[in-house]
Amino acid sequence: MQVAILPAMTNPWLPIPGGLTAPAGFLAAGITAGLKPSGNPDLSLLLAPEGAVCAGSFTTSLVRAACVDLCAERLAASGGRARAVLTNSGQANACTGERGLADSLAATAALAQRLNLAAEEVLICSTGVIGVPIPMDTLIAGLEPLVAALASDGGEAAARAILTTDLVDKQIALEAQLGGRRVRIGGMAKGSGMIHPNMATMLGYLSCDAGVPAELWQQMVRRAVERSFNAITVDGDTSTNDTFLAFAAGKPLAPEHFDALEAGLTAVSQHLARAIARDGEGATCLIAVRVEGAADDAGARAIARTICGSSLVKCAIHGRDPNWGRIVAAAGRAGVAFDPEAVALWLGDHQLMEAGQPLVFDRAAASRYMKDRANGSYLSADPASGDTVAIRLLVGAGAGSGLAWGCDLSDQYVRINADYTT
Amino acid sequence: MQVAILPAMTNPWLPIPGGLTAPAGFLAAGITAGLKPSGNPDLSLLLAPEGAVCAGSFTTSLVRAACVDLCAERLAASGGRARAVLTNSGQANACTGERGLADSLAATAALAQRLNLAAEEVLICSTGVIGVPIPMDTLIAGLEPLVAALASDGGEAAARAILTTDLVDKQIALEAQLGGRRVRIGGMAKGSGMIHPNMATMLGYLSCDAGVPAELWQQMVRRAVERSFNAITVDGDTSTNDTFLAFAAGKPLAPEHFDALEAGLTAVSQHLARAIARDGEGATCLIAVRVEGAADDAGARAIARTICGSSLVKCAIHGRDPNWGRIVAAAGRAGVAFDPEAVALWLGDHQLMEAGQPLVFDRAAASRYMKDRANGSYLSADPASGDTVAIRLLVGAGAGSGLAWGCDLSDQYVRINADYTT
Repeated sequence: MQVAILPAMTNPWLPIPGGLTAPAGFLAAGITAGLKPSGNPDLSLLLAPEGAVCAGSFTTSLVRAACVDLCAERLAASGGRARAVLTNSGQANACTGERGLADSLAATAALAQRLNLAAEEVLICSTGVIGVPIPMDTLIAGLEPLVAALASDGGEAAARAILTTDLVDKQIALEAQLGGRRVRIGGMAKGSGMIHPNMATMLGYLSCDAGVPAELWQQMVRRAVERSFNAITVDGDTSTNDTFLAFAAGKPLAPEHFDALEAGLTAVSQHLARAIARDGEGATCLIAVRVEGAADDAGARAIARTICGSSLVKCAIHGRDPNWGRIVAAAGRAGVAFDPEAVALWLGDHQLMEAGQPLVFDRAAASRYMKDRANGSYLSADPASGDTVAIRLLVGAGAGSGLAWGCDLSDQYVRINADYTT
Repeated sequence: MQVAILPAMTNPWLPIPGGLTAPAGFLAAGITAGLKPSGNPDLSLLLAPEGAVCAGSFTTSLVRAACVDLCAERLAASGGRARAVLTNSGQANACTGERGLADSLAATAALAQRLNLAAEEVLICSTGVIGVPIPMDTLIAGLEPLVAALASDGGEAAARAILTTDLVDKQIALEAQLGGRRVRIGGMAKGSGMIHPNMATMLGYLSCDAGVPAELWQQMVRRAVERSFNAITVDGDTSTNDTFLAFAAGKPLAPEHFDALEAGLTAVSQHLARAIARDGEGATCLIAVRVEGAADDAGARAIARTICGSSLVKCAIHGRDPNWGRIVAAAGRAGVAFDPEAVALWLGDHQLMEAGQPLVFDRAAASRYMKDRANGSYLSADPASGDTVAIRLLVGAGAGSGLAWGCDLSDQYVRINADYTT
């Protein structure tokens, strides 16, 4: 079986080194300002070229940080335009009362002044401990060295400075020739816990050096988010600060290349989303679930997400146990209509069910398939290798299909989250 | 703070020894028929008096066992009347294709003949491994000794024979004087995760020796289930076989006592539901969440359930970490509108938040409160003792309140579920 990253079309996009600053005109920086007790980098900046459009996607949680409100309001007021985004890691600035908004306003105002921008053109994301205010003196003092560090190769430093409990940084850049012209898309993300569809303490950023009308860009980004960040789950928890910001700025792209651009945008978003799921706390493998034959794509995605989110499925995969009963039981509670008698199920190349009933299969081989997934990399181009445990579920004869990604649930996850703050 | 078992009213119900057969006229039995390799009891029977009404509540999973379909169909056809229910443990008889229904029909037909009842008056519940058919010869051979064992004190044997991975059996009986007349309600249940679709499912049974019109009984049971079995979560997974069956048979109760009866019905259901959550795989404590001040009860219950179901909250409580940020973050994603600035939060007697912001509190004392909950019993009448970690969340000034129960998430849960079948 194959879990495709890109929709079925001729794929003009090739990976290139770098991340957020691979596209022309984008500058970034990441420094240690002293917000984190660890001394790790904690202040990050992205500066987009003049005329940039920006589409944002935010946590659906009712309890959200002031910085999220500020981003959403500024993008709505500007019709989807922004130039810069500041990210502080260490303090989430959520549940901090009126001070939360005041600090977000002060930080963006001070940065705007240094960048010679209007405050309204500057956005801010915060990540870290909830309920703790940002040490504002430290942040403000960090702005001068941060702006001084802005560079056309600053993407990697920026990607490191947004991390909290992540084990690895998460970056990607793709390049395509569209109408004889080079177009690049770059991205970075953070997040490894509180990760669930509808944005997780998950921050994501994307840059693109092709010009696209603001409204169209927003539509493209919304669809890409639905098929990437909203299709991953680590632990079912949604964060107060989840934000995805996608910037585009450059020579206007000809409309005949919009579909290709959206494919690249989706590929970058899916790469970052998979990277977050793979870095899930305590995870030993990525789980990719493809559901086919549903009445529509939304239903297929909902089933795939429910399977990825099932604690029992996640534990079974952690134990490398080909436990088809848990997979089909999770599908049954997804709230999507299908005929249980039509269910067929594959784990990698091993078929486990047909017509709603278990098949006799080589249990040891199926378990070995999963054991082998603990090594390698989920980025492997060969779907038969790498560390992705692939599940494919057929639920009928409908045209709807959908993908979701998650990770296994280990005792390590419990230890990390039982011992975290105290 | 207090997490009330009963709604606020004068409570006429007192606990008495026994379970399902404490109410007059109910007979039960439990034997070892040989369905389980372990040799533990595996066949259970409840026989209700003539004229009994029966209300059922079933799994909402689309993938459900044939026995669940059969129960639902028979109760619908009879207008809520049934006399007996057979339970086999060891095989869930789910995902067994056409054979599943044939076996359920054959088992109830054979039992009905022995009990001199119509097949339509007999129900069947199955629990155990999914995808494995019931060894029918063994089951049929067990019916004669099972019927012979029926006794007015058979409740305990019946309660033992329905268990699978449970560590303890779950029974209760209550008695009240209603209008100068003794009324009793008894119950038993099994389940130690709503989940473990390979082996575990929640099954619940209730008996009552007061006569109630079938339709009214169904309404009472529906409300009681909403406030008990539908308010617990162990790991968010729903089984293919979840079933609750409540029987009532006896001298008709005067309508002025219906409210009191429903209070008893709710108390028995809540006791059994809490017992299941407490026996959750790997759990070290019961978590009781009370949400107040919501717009309505349904919204309050939804928030309470979301908190109980949050892996991050469950891990924090396992680590005895007073992590209020995770509790309020879980509330925020429950899909229920409330004002985050109105939130106040208590852990036991320790107030952690007020007006949406964290308070300075004695973190060590709050952690100690949780550590102490690992001992004692959740059945303790004193809400300040026992092994219940009590969370109270105020979300506004509305009249809606609701309760939910769950358990902590331990590394032991992961080990149990990662190592189960292979």
